[in-house]
Amino acid sequence: MTTVSILGAGNMGPAIANIVEKSGNTAELFDSNDTDKAVTGEIVVLAVPYPAVREVIAQRGEQFDGKVVVDITNPLNFETFDSLVVPAESSATAEVAAALPTSKVLKAFNTTFAATLTSGTVGDQPATVLIAGDDAGAKAQLAEIVTGGGLTAIDAGALNRARELEALGFLQLTLAASEKIDWTGGFALKA
Amino acid sequence: MTTVSILGAGNMGPAIANIVEKSGNTAELFDSNDTDKAVTGEIVVLAVPYPAVREVIAQRGEQFDGKVVVDITNPLNFETFDSLVVPAESSATAEVAAALPTSKVLKAFNTTFAATLTSGTVGDQPATVLIAGDDAGAKAQLAEIVTGGGLTAIDAGALNRARELEALGFLQLTLAASEKIDWTGGFALKA
Repeated sequence: MTTVSILGAGNMGPAIANIVEKSGNTAELFDSNDTDKAVTGEIVVLAVPYPAVREVIAQRGEQFDGKVVVDITNPLNFETFDSLVVPAESSATAEVAAALPTSKVLKAFNTTFAATLTSGTVGDQPATVLIAGDDAGAKAQLAEIVTGGGLTAIDAGALNRARELEALGFLQLTLAASEKIDWTGGFALKA
Repeated sequence: MTTVSILGAGNMGPAIANIVEKSGNTAELFDSNDTDKAVTGEIVVLAVPYPAVREVIAQRGEQFDGKVVVDITNPLNFETFDSLVVPAESSATAEVAAALPTSKVLKAFNTTFAATLTSGTVGDQPATVLIAGDDAGAKAQLAEIVTGGGLTAIDAGALNRARELEALGFLQLTLAASEKIDWTGGFALKA
């Protein structure tokens, strides 16, 4: 039994908590009023918008020592919707990993809209959570929870693939915001 | 009736020619021995690997004046399979557009494996050709051929979205090369 601490009670946090519970593990959901409550999970999901990640790490970084930390952000410039706000050769996840050198940092859940995490499907395909990171054990642990929760998990490679996952998340957000696709759809992955 | 000149007779060129013909238009396929034959189409598809694009433009660039030029490349470092060879803030398509200032340059077909162009499907979804570019008329012209050929076309935005399309193509290639997905599968798009 794994406890997963999910920081952020927007649309993604509860959807991820639901997957964790479906998988038979325990989800612990924190909203922005819970700053005094320490995380207890072996896995921590940063389900806050990108601009809030820095603050969460400043407040709680020491609590993440030795834990698996999952970054789900899409670091868009939401004013222009035309670029990411991280350097082109980097990623939000690389920044999180640099700020948390004693954590096992993963990228996941940034290419699946909340509705697809809840429905478990994208069209006729199972929703696929792409996971990138440098710690194989951490990736396997998260993949087990995702598949236990009824979704598909795919190891998308090392932490430096977070850059491409963020490009994919960005592209998907622009397609939905411009009404080319629905927020219940998006990219499905056919193995 | 539009003539589409396709430079490159590898696995992508003939698959794209097949779509053009299904749409009721004319495809003109050039292989590497056809350097003396001028292109006649209003649309030119650069269906050669990225390293050969520069040479094609050097040989034929003047023939592309005023035409729609479609870049389908994924500019991977095929030695490492771990990065793209274009600058992080740029794209292969941006380079093509800079080299061909009097052409209407589009990115398309780089996120659909040849097998999915031929089958017309990715899993249970229609294969979707994502098209990026700055000329709305050129995008509409290509989209009409793609949809006439039985596939789905989606306008993915301006030419600067080619960067994200190349990231998506790169990610998809790494997933297939590492046998996480099959070359008949890949990313489907559920609208």
